[in-house]
Amino acid sequence: MSAPQRRFDLPCTAIPSAWYNIAADLPVPAPPPLDPNTGKPAGPELLAPIFPMGLLQQEMSTERWIDVPGAVMEAYSLYRPSPLIRATALEKALDTPARIYYKYEGVSPAGSHKPNTAIPQAYYNKLEGVKRITTETGAGQWGCALALACSLFDVECMVYMVKVSFFQKPYRRSMMAAWGAECIASPSDTTETGRKVLAETPDTPGSLGIAISEAVEDAVGREDTKYSLGSVLNHVLLHQTIIGQEAQIQMEMAGDEPDVVIGCHGGGSNFAGLAFPYIRDKITKGKTTRIVAVEPKSCPTLTQGPLAYDYGDTGKMTPLLHMYTLGSGFVAPGIHAGGLRYHGAAPLTSHCIGQGYAEAIAVPQLETFAAAITFARSEGFIPAPESAHAICAAIREANAAKEAGEERVILFNLSGHGHFDMAAYDAYLAGQLTDIEPPAESLAGSLACLPKVDG
Amino acid sequence: MSAPQRRFDLPCTAIPSAWYNIAADLPVPAPPPLDPNTGKPAGPELLAPIFPMGLLQQEMSTERWIDVPGAVMEAYSLYRPSPLIRATALEKALDTPARIYYKYEGVSPAGSHKPNTAIPQAYYNKLEGVKRITTETGAGQWGCALALACSLFDVECMVYMVKVSFFQKPYRRSMMAAWGAECIASPSDTTETGRKVLAETPDTPGSLGIAISEAVEDAVGREDTKYSLGSVLNHVLLHQTIIGQEAQIQMEMAGDEPDVVIGCHGGGSNFAGLAFPYIRDKITKGKTTRIVAVEPKSCPTLTQGPLAYDYGDTGKMTPLLHMYTLGSGFVAPGIHAGGLRYHGAAPLTSHCIGQGYAEAIAVPQLETFAAAITFARSEGFIPAPESAHAICAAIREANAAKEAGEERVILFNLSGHGHFDMAAYDAYLAGQLTDIEPPAESLAGSLACLPKVDG
Repeated sequence: MSAPQRRFDLPCTAIPSAWYNIAADLPVPAPPPLDPNTGKPAGPELLAPIFPMGLLQQEMSTERWIDVPGAVMEAYSLYRPSPLIRATALEKALDTPARIYYKYEGVSPAGSHKPNTAIPQAYYNKLEGVKRITTETGAGQWGCALALACSLFDVECMVYMVKVSFFQKPYRRSMMAAWGAECIASPSDTTETGRKVLAETPDTPGSLGIAISEAVEDAVGREDTKYSLGSVLNHVLLHQTIIGQEAQIQMEMAGDEPDVVIGCHGGGSNFAGLAFPYIRDKITKGKTTRIVAVEPKSCPTLTQGPLAYDYGDTGKMTPLLHMYTLGSGFVAPGIHAGGLRYHGAAPLTSHCIGQGYAEAIAVPQLETFAAAITFARSEGFIPAPESAHAICAAIREANAAKEAGEERVILFNLSGHGHFDMAAYDAYLAGQLTDIEPPAESLAGSLACLPKVDG
Repeated sequence: MSAPQRRFDLPCTAIPSAWYNIAADLPVPAPPPLDPNTGKPAGPELLAPIFPMGLLQQEMSTERWIDVPGAVMEAYSLYRPSPLIRATALEKALDTPARIYYKYEGVSPAGSHKPNTAIPQAYYNKLEGVKRITTETGAGQWGCALALACSLFDVECMVYMVKVSFFQKPYRRSMMAAWGAECIASPSDTTETGRKVLAETPDTPGSLGIAISEAVEDAVGREDTKYSLGSVLNHVLLHQTIIGQEAQIQMEMAGDEPDVVIGCHGGGSNFAGLAFPYIRDKITKGKTTRIVAVEPKSCPTLTQGPLAYDYGDTGKMTPLLHMYTLGSGFVAPGIHAGGLRYHGAAPLTSHCIGQGYAEAIAVPQLETFAAAITFARSEGFIPAPESAHAICAAIREANAAKEAGEERVILFNLSGHGHFDMAAYDAYLAGQLTDIEPPAESLAGSLACLPKVDG
């Protein structure tokens, strides 16, 4: 065959046996979370009621490598190592001298990278005797991943799903039901928070902030129950580094090294998963790889927010996190990449951007969908709207390489498929989507409410 | 790790380079298709107006191996070789001494095995200068596969989708649109057939028979257009043998050999794809592997139909095919495994069953969905309702092995995922599904109308 090799597959015996903890290699440590009541660094005791110790230890750890337990390896091997694919057909469609590679996480049973952390989270909870895990979900991708993981480890799963999505994306909740999880619309009448919101605004569409509060309240109120989060926290990003570690081995198989590494960025977990092992090489080996986080223009956290202490949720129940933020009261316009509508960002990805190890760009919705269609019609896979942000940036890089007349090696994370997002494609193809940016006054308003922190 | 290895992955350089043609090894050849006007064997000229010569040659060929063209190999390598997975978690859930393996075809961009033939079909059409391909689709799985393949080879694609599914499964048509295909509800007003049906029965839900007639009429009427079929024909089954060839290599990697090989059976293509290379070993090496085709009790073609000449379509436009059939007028009750509702069966799979190389069983809808849920909650992947028939049979085998207290190696084809079938899972979990069998009088009625053929 004269055609270049397209896939670089690893056997399941080659799944990396340890997660990579970037905290071990950061010359300047990331600022710690603060207890909002005292303004002092928040110790594990603050989070112990809602997370198992195994995960809290990882959250605080500065060990470089943390072993993946055998049972997690076994569950990973259902879909890992994920494929690394050379986008030869996309390269041809773009007529670019660039070589484009993508790591495809849509092969997991839940259809995204999210099980990479849902599986160890379910495992560590099970290990400590937790019988039931609560969480919140917006569009449902995280709820599905946790439902899957809980079914694999025989733990009950309770998902509070933002009400508007609960009705708009019924098939995501069908998936959770197929895996045996309970999923209810938030606000619900099963929690104090939910009942209060319903009493005040019976017609509310719900929000991630409310759903987080309900899931946490549920977990705090029951001895047998803990809470789980799908992004932002250190241990979540840690688990996702399995992606980048595999990618590095696979890129070596391909005989190429990326000049630029790209991931879409909402909470930060899929971006970090691919990027952190490459940032490690920048720190420890002096490599000059460009690392690009891509966010939507409608929710420009990394490109327009300050790096500051803020609450992780709208209800101001979390510790204060040092991160890029648009203010915990910010509500992003309704775009179809629901997973990228978070007001904040992971402290660790924020720190990496703040320290100059990575850069951030914001792309508009229409260019993103155009990129998704170009990709689907050449590479075949229909991407999740979130992942399409990474494709959009990759295409920009490939076009820039063409203009500059230079070879450029581009690697991006195709974090999930779009099988449950086809209504968004319909809207795009029917010309019903527009580019949306948040009004300047709404941004200014939410930023004015950042908490005051000394030091 | 003490856990048994779960996945047996092949590198993309190991995709088999030739399709396997079972016609070369059959001691008794399968009876040929007949021209219904003359009762004589139908030559290629009968089908030349609607199929390219490259495919017609394969349809008639008795060569054992037919090379996979390089461009097809390149497109295959987007998702092939597909994984072979040992169902260790399902084995544990069933507490069985059996070792269960499945070949997972849901990793293709269209989510099923169908692209294995859609890709070469688009390729051979492109090679002969065909600009546009028409087809019909029921639930939409085949329409999606052909839309995908046409987008990869830059050929226009026109899909006539059975009207009731067109409205019930909107996201399948969204996928086709994302790949650039045109998809209209059948009956449509763009064909003579469609207009006639609409004039007589404006409220018809449509049928596969009508949609076939429209797609064929469209192809016959335009110089630049050919027609494509997703199952039943010899060349379609030929292309699918890539599945079984890979499985044989992977089972060898696993150090196991199947005692029983299982596939669900509608038209016959995914069953044949896995089974034919194993039937070859029965014929040429005297192996005793049991080969099981699984159909729904609601459409018991293989278990209750005679092996006879019949039309492939309701409109009686096709040559007469020698196959198991319930009569071309048979309309199966509405079950959720839409892909298994065909009145007939592939002539080659029919012949293999008739000759005793394979056996057939029929399973009821509720047991099938129960099997799908058991599978999803252990192995993670949510199966298509069609594929769940194979799971159902595999679970029966595993339970039988347990009762007999014997090790048994079971291999089945998980032909696709259920991401676009979640409404069926909702109905099942809500207790709204029942077991349906066709009324005896309806079966007797359609069987009484089989065409009379001499010889």
